[in-house]
Amino acid sequence: MGSLDSNPASIDAFAGDAEGFQPLNADDVRSYLHKSVDFIYDYYKSVESMPVLPGVEPGYLSRLLQSAPPSAAAPFDIAMKELREAVVPGMTHWASPNFFAFFPATNSAAAIAGELIASAMNTVGFTWQANPAATEMEVLALDWLAQLLRLPDSFIMNRTGGGRGTGGGVILGTTSEAMIVTLVAARDAALRRIGSDGVAGITRLTVYAADQTHSTFFKACRLAGFDPANIRSVPTGPETDFAVDPAKLLEVMQADVDTGLVPTYICATVGTTSSNAVDPVGAVADVAAAFNAWVHVDAAYAGSACICPEFRHHLAGVERVDSISMSPHKWLMTCLDCTCLWVRDAHRLTGSLETNPEYLKNDASDSGTVTDLKDMQVGVGRRFRGLKLWMVMRTYGAARLQEHIRSDVAMAKMFEDAVRTDGRFEVVVPRNFALVCFRIKPHGGMTEEDAERANRELMEGLNRTGKAYIAHTVIGGKFVLRFAVGSSLQEERHVRSAWELIRKKTAEIMSGDKVSV
Amino acid sequence: MGSLDSNPASIDAFAGDAEGFQPLNADDVRSYLHKSVDFIYDYYKSVESMPVLPGVEPGYLSRLLQSAPPSAAAPFDIAMKELREAVVPGMTHWASPNFFAFFPATNSAAAIAGELIASAMNTVGFTWQANPAATEMEVLALDWLAQLLRLPDSFIMNRTGGGRGTGGGVILGTTSEAMIVTLVAARDAALRRIGSDGVAGITRLTVYAADQTHSTFFKACRLAGFDPANIRSVPTGPETDFAVDPAKLLEVMQADVDTGLVPTYICATVGTTSSNAVDPVGAVADVAAAFNAWVHVDAAYAGSACICPEFRHHLAGVERVDSISMSPHKWLMTCLDCTCLWVRDAHRLTGSLETNPEYLKNDASDSGTVTDLKDMQVGVGRRFRGLKLWMVMRTYGAARLQEHIRSDVAMAKMFEDAVRTDGRFEVVVPRNFALVCFRIKPHGGMTEEDAERANRELMEGLNRTGKAYIAHTVIGGKFVLRFAVGSSLQEERHVRSAWELIRKKTAEIMSGDKVSV
Repeated sequence: MGSLDSNPASIDAFAGDAEGFQPLNADDVRSYLHKSVDFIYDYYKSVESMPVLPGVEPGYLSRLLQSAPPSAAAPFDIAMKELREAVVPGMTHWASPNFFAFFPATNSAAAIAGELIASAMNTVGFTWQANPAATEMEVLALDWLAQLLRLPDSFIMNRTGGGRGTGGGVILGTTSEAMIVTLVAARDAALRRIGSDGVAGITRLTVYAADQTHSTFFKACRLAGFDPANIRSVPTGPETDFAVDPAKLLEVMQADVDTGLVPTYICATVGTTSSNAVDPVGAVADVAAAFNAWVHVDAAYAGSACICPEFRHHLAGVERVDSISMSPHKWLMTCLDCTCLWVRDAHRLTGSLETNPEYLKNDASDSGTVTDLKDMQVGVGRRFRGLKLWMVMRTYGAARLQEHIRSDVAMAKMFEDAVRTDGRFEVVVPRNFALVCFRIKPHGGMTEEDAERANRELMEGLNRTGKAYIAHTVIGGKFVLRFAVGSSLQEERHVRSAWELIRKKTAEIMSGDKVSV
Repeated sequence: MGSLDSNPASIDAFAGDAEGFQPLNADDVRSYLHKSVDFIYDYYKSVESMPVLPGVEPGYLSRLLQSAPPSAAAPFDIAMKELREAVVPGMTHWASPNFFAFFPATNSAAAIAGELIASAMNTVGFTWQANPAATEMEVLALDWLAQLLRLPDSFIMNRTGGGRGTGGGVILGTTSEAMIVTLVAARDAALRRIGSDGVAGITRLTVYAADQTHSTFFKACRLAGFDPANIRSVPTGPETDFAVDPAKLLEVMQADVDTGLVPTYICATVGTTSSNAVDPVGAVADVAAAFNAWVHVDAAYAGSACICPEFRHHLAGVERVDSISMSPHKWLMTCLDCTCLWVRDAHRLTGSLETNPEYLKNDASDSGTVTDLKDMQVGVGRRFRGLKLWMVMRTYGAARLQEHIRSDVAMAKMFEDAVRTDGRFEVVVPRNFALVCFRIKPHGGMTEEDAERANRELMEGLNRTGKAYIAHTVIGGKFVLRFAVGSSLQEERHVRSAWELIRKKTAEIMSGDKVSV
């Protein structure tokens, strides 16, 4: 039957160049990374003085860099030089402490270190076997964060004894992915419930969210095949501070049932993007229960605040929802991308998302004692996603994380107080977290149109200075400025400077004096 | 109207602690990253000697690390210590040069550096305005790679003059995402074409792929709402080396049309996961044209090889398809995740994926002269995805990248030659790239069952040694071993050692001698 010595295929069968290109030569890796760390150090030291919004024109980069890929290798310094000279000047600096637009993309030394190590290890943990440590680290990080958020036990995956609970979690890239996987699970459950022949029943399924819900929800519904005509946007107004009114939700859902439709999924938001409105989670869950509809809580931004006891009440009733997602990359100092999704019954997800190709079969998966994270996400491949989130919690602890949230909220409150004491402005909706929605209000004979024009002029003028970047929204028909505190390099002095700049610009606009600052 | 001096809201309105926790303190960042670089250096130097597959039991990590999140902060060294002592021993080391399973996750110094810098800048380039440099860098990187692949001009986004061409690209996380966004665009186009009332017509839409197509395609179809009964898996066999037979495809599609169904989408694979079969792209496109169906080419793994002229023929006909995706994280030395998608008509994607919430409105987007990458992907948020891919091409150039592909292929060929000269083995399908599918063949009175048992025993015994990790598949009903060359630290000596180990294990199995090596 052959032996080691008699076998004709000896090692001499091999020939060729054992040298050559070594893409992961450890000395090169160290050298390139040290240069990168120097760049990052300089960047953090100097980003404050760079224009937050760059003044570049569309197509600028292709005019600076060669349009064809090089054929020969070049020293790494060339790429770094082009990065410094061509890329950095065209960046919108989300890391700038003068960035107050959208929501901040928060970050920390521990998170960057975790992501760096994950990139270098470069594992693909689709199944437990493909990387036990990465899988278990992700489960551990999610269980830790669930504890910080005081999520009910039903969402915790890792029970004592090592087996699966009914609940479970997964780290995804964005909230949109969390919405899609839960929408699909809810869709399939509803189709089964109504005895649909294949997907024929999909035309009867309806989904719901407040009109303040992130636009990506409506997109996710369309991606999952829901009929655009069956995606309900429930109107909100100032009487509920733009949160959904459960009575209105009930009315809309009941009307659908009355016409033979099947309420399938409701998205409640804790901290809307536009104005940080908070849908009443428990009341929404109670309404949904009557219809057997899936309730998902999107707490992408404000979920992070709920690690502080004083904000936890915004999640009241979460024990009655089916799933919740939040994004530590938004406010828990974990660089992009990192969205955590927890579901109360993991099997409802895996039932819709499981695949089992031959080449991924293994004893551990067959045993049913392990979690294969591929079955809780859109794709198969996945980075070592849990490491940076675990490193953030391990290094900073609950105390530092809470301190960070509170510091941002305090700075936002100070800004809000300043706005309130200036008669030219108004705070448009109550501030819940670290976002202040304000505007120059119509005063001294200004019409609503004058006010809108002034606010646009203020925003554009401010952003053109490069010294601050704020964004806008429309709430209740009003053009409103959004001032989001929380960029990770931000200190009180940056908030002060921005406010001074806003006052100065406003004075210029009010006096008709357009001299730039 | 107020003036700077008379305004009641002065900077004195602010108060509070300006000190406190600084998550991005530049000195901390440098210190944490230097420690991480040291770790990575040591890891690359030592990973070769670590067991590729760890011998841990499910739940091992929760027995080593605390189950509750710490409340107090801890020195970063604590996290690093736990990483070394608890995480590393439970890793499946994809970076090990002794890793031959699945497809390798290739990597390089330039890629890790690019990802590190992107993590530190931490920008969210959903629109051009939200980060002009990141958007234009991604477009540039995609255009460069399209040139390396000699994709037709119709896929190139950045024409001279800075405007959009009809084609376009985007970097996504995984092939699954590329499939979903194109499936949805094709689905919506087909629904419009048949005059469907909302999504009612979805039950008539059919999609196609060879039975060797990655399981994630079938999952993506279900996510996008296609009826499971309308997802056609076209059988393949040894007569086409497990590539799809265009005649069979035509037959299946025509049969569907004859029963009133609407062929909507076909996925052709260049380099299947199981055995690296190559569907004939041009012939598939010709069949699809008759039905107005969308053709997507999934070249996740083998696309990288097509930067070499001698492999480019595998993409022949690509000018007639609608979209193509490939993943530089698989074989172009760009760490996870990085999947490039090109479409011939970007508007067909954005038509299904565009959102336009008030807070993202801006003059640049309104002008129509810029690309907003959020409209070509599942979600809204996105990392600075183009940087690492550009750094890889900028630093290594086409020459080094081609050298790397050729070196892997040469090593695979050497392995294949060795297998062929050993009478106990057979190569099961022709080797196209750097994957060898082989097995102990029935010989010396062995039945097919004996052979399957011997191959399983060989794989499991080999993997248990920790000195190599190979995976398996089933092709044409046979249990087959997959030997994938290409891990970025791999050199010829690792391939030699693995082959020696395979021979030794096989000899033991054949002689009934189970002494471990």
